Amino acid sequence: MTLDAVLSRIDEDLPQATDRLIQLLKIQSISTDPAYKAECDRAADWLVEDLRSLGVDAGKRATPGHPMVVGHHGGEGRHLMFYGHYDVQPVDPLNLWDRDPFDPQIEDTPNGKVIRGRGASDDKGQLMTFVEACRAWKAVHGTLPGHLTFFFEGEEESGSPSLVPFLKENADELRADVALICDTGLFGDDTPAIVTMLRGLLGEELTITGPSKDLHSGLYGGPSINPVRVLSRIIAGLHDDTGRITVPGFYDGVPELPGQLRSQWDNLNFDHSAFLGGVGLSTPAGEQDRTPLEMLWSRPTCEVNGIWGGYQGDGFKTVLPAQAHAKISFRLVGTQDPHEIRKNFRKMVEDQLPPDCSVEWKAHGASPASQMSIENPAFDLARHALSPEWPKPAAYIGGGGSIPIAGYFKSILDTDSMLIGFAKADDQIHSPNEKYDLSSFHRGIRSWARVLDALTR
Amino acid sequence: MTLDAVLSRIDEDLPQATDRLIQLLKIQSISTDPAYKAECDRAADWLVEDLRSLGVDAGKRATPGHPMVVGHHGGEGRHLMFYGHYDVQPVDPLNLWDRDPFDPQIEDTPNGKVIRGRGASDDKGQLMTFVEACRAWKAVHGTLPGHLTFFFEGEEESGSPSLVPFLKENADELRADVALICDTGLFGDDTPAIVTMLRGLLGEELTITGPSKDLHSGLYGGPSINPVRVLSRIIAGLHDDTGRITVPGFYDGVPELPGQLRSQWDNLNFDHSAFLGGVGLSTPAGEQDRTPLEMLWSRPTCEVNGIWGGYQGDGFKTVLPAQAHAKISFRLVGTQDPHEIRKNFRKMVEDQLPPDCSVEWKAHGASPASQMSIENPAFDLARHALSPEWPKPAAYIGGGGSIPIAGYFKSILDTDSMLIGFAKADDQIHSPNEKYDLSSFHRGIRSWARVLDALTR
Repeated sequence: MTLDAVLSRIDEDLPQATDRLIQLLKIQSISTDPAYKAECDRAADWLVEDLRSLGVDAGKRATPGHPMVVGHHGGEGRHLMFYGHYDVQPVDPLNLWDRDPFDPQIEDTPNGKVIRGRGASDDKGQLMTFVEACRAWKAVHGTLPGHLTFFFEGEEESGSPSLVPFLKENADELRADVALICDTGLFGDDTPAIVTMLRGLLGEELTITGPSKDLHSGLYGGPSINPVRVLSRIIAGLHDDTGRITVPGFYDGVPELPGQLRSQWDNLNFDHSAFLGGVGLSTPAGEQDRTPLEMLWSRPTCEVNGIWGGYQGDGFKTVLPAQAHAKISFRLVGTQDPHEIRKNFRKMVEDQLPPDCSVEWKAHGASPASQMSIENPAFDLARHALSPEWPKPAAYIGGGGSIPIAGYFKSILDTDSMLIGFAKADDQIHSPNEKYDLSSFHRGIRSWARVLDALTR
Repeated sequence: MTLDAVLSRIDEDLPQATDRLIQLLKIQSISTDPAYKAECDRAADWLVEDLRSLGVDAGKRATPGHPMVVGHHGGEGRHLMFYGHYDVQPVDPLNLWDRDPFDPQIEDTPNGKVIRGRGASDDKGQLMTFVEACRAWKAVHGTLPGHLTFFFEGEEESGSPSLVPFLKENADELRADVALICDTGLFGDDTPAIVTMLRGLLGEELTITGPSKDLHSGLYGGPSINPVRVLSRIIAGLHDDTGRITVPGFYDGVPELPGQLRSQWDNLNFDHSAFLGGVGLSTPAGEQDRTPLEMLWSRPTCEVNGIWGGYQGDGFKTVLPAQAHAKISFRLVGTQDPHEIRKNFRKMVEDQLPPDCSVEWKAHGASPASQMSIENPAFDLARHALSPEWPKPAAYIGGGGSIPIAGYFKSILDTDSMLIGFAKADDQIHSPNEKYDLSSFHRGIRSWARVLDALTR
């Protein structure tokens, strides 16, 4: 079995693979801070050189920001494009780190060995799982499998300003049959996961104005409208008593969960008590007739992310505020149309305004949900290939947040994405003491070998 | 007619009275700023000397803060105690003044002559209306009328910290049949007013906590409770659709307006369109079945004075906040019991909390409403005495805000207060360019001569 040979090679080479990752982690490629521009460049160079050592036709491609790394390996069959990012988050507050974030090491912990350092999990460690799988493949077979494109970005942690223009300019070169994105996590510690749905996001900010200036609540309280009360009524009316959102037409395009996914999700035995208990909660607070996983992954939400108005300092001030403000966002699923919802939401609010009140709006982004085409046979091939590597079989899961890259690959390249990653919930990404379990790294490499085998056969 | 002689004397002496007020205004008696302590002392000395020139047995009385000025004139009949305050507000921002606030002058304006300077209206000008009425009386009659006590405070603009202890220690000395407080305004420009009801104030601050920390609204939104939404629902439920407050037992002790007051208030022809129009409003927003004057003076309110939670900065942050905060106050009337209302309000909120939410409270003061005993015949005597001096007859009015002094006189001295003042709405008290109309000063002095005559007969 050629796959077995590749897996054995991965096992033997793990110490060297770890050393290579540590080399990459030592490069201080913080993308948001212009002081680290040269380090970002150096990380890109390092990756170009490493890909070339695998026989990949790789190069650094300039952008107005940090460079892209693009590499090709021609071949037959399904065209796979692999995406990761080589930039990392800033490291402050530095005093909360137990070690130099850019002097990474293997550490023994009660839960096993971990690689500790900035970017160990997000995303250099994850990116290298794929590269190391390719390296082992080449060592055994003398060449890489199938038709591969490597695409590494250096601006993911700073909003990816160059990504969309780059994708548009190079669409023909980057288009593939399926994109493999390694920037997500396991489900629990034992279940490999393919994210097949990501919620979209619509952000709105509103300011309700009543009186022309702040008033004294003794001199004006009674006949004068209070915009904080008006705003509170509007927010209170955004959900009915069963937790459903009341914006007209809001549920247009919200699909019921397909039976196949429902049974997979049920099999996950999601421990919502532990999930909520971790943040001091116990009772699922969303739509009454939905499971907690549905609430998180396949149902839309409406949240108040911020509210303010009147006096917020120490003590008391009997002000009747002239204005009240809120930032409100909607997580979207299925084919919900953010622009239609924005329109209906605004109209709903405006229709509720009492006399003497006006509202001003600020739009804060509107991205639809991503739903992967799991009818693409690559999905089930990958899922079945992943399962033998882990204690529990692989599952299609959802993601409550938004990962825009999958949407861009679909809309600009017409390429479906599979999000497969091996991070754990306690990896402390974006925080001090980031780590990647050595087992995540090792099994991650082996997982990609299995997926490569299945998808390039 | 002896009153006519006194009024004539007032007219003749007006230039000298104005000069004396200007002398007093030049003393920089800002009570909140320790740098002006000696100036406060100087103002008290000035008043002691001026009272002594009227034959009053006056003295400066030390307190832990600024001194009180107390003076007595023995005599027969109704014992009248006159209250005013010699301290003034700070003057910043100084650059918004058109003149030195402590170099007051008479200015010609399109609306007539005004005395411009800090304290001209609040309260040195008003305080001196009474003193000047006494001076004219003494000039004509050789002595002051009746039994008078003068009581001037120097800490009114800094929360009167020494007042209650001083009243308690000197209750027997200060107790009178009626207190005359000159620190309020006319109703409109032409109607002298006696304030007979002042609303009380109950302040509450609450913090609702849901999750143990701020959450990512993508990763937790759906099953996780949002305390801003909980708070909004609570606030939205504090009023019913007719504007009535829903706290259980809230209207216990809210009296209907006596017929005598209702007809007086109707006669005031309160222009609520102009009142609300001045702050950009048009529609009375309080209880649906009440007149705007009732909403302001004789009906209780519940207002949100401040609200905050989550992200309030520029842009957007998809946080699901751990906490939401509000400052909420109630204006109270009649015999509403602030402590009972606090208890019922807290219970009502706590009963509405969904699972996983808790509430913390901060109490911010609880003072009941003041209702003067207008059955005391001094009230109608004063009202009838005031009327001939002004274009329109005097009226009993209410006050939406709280003036604690009247409550202290009642509770500590068992003395009813009559609040009679001649300030106008555009006097800019507490603001740059404070002024007192020369007509307010002149007619105010004449008004007190008439009231003194009526009450000491």
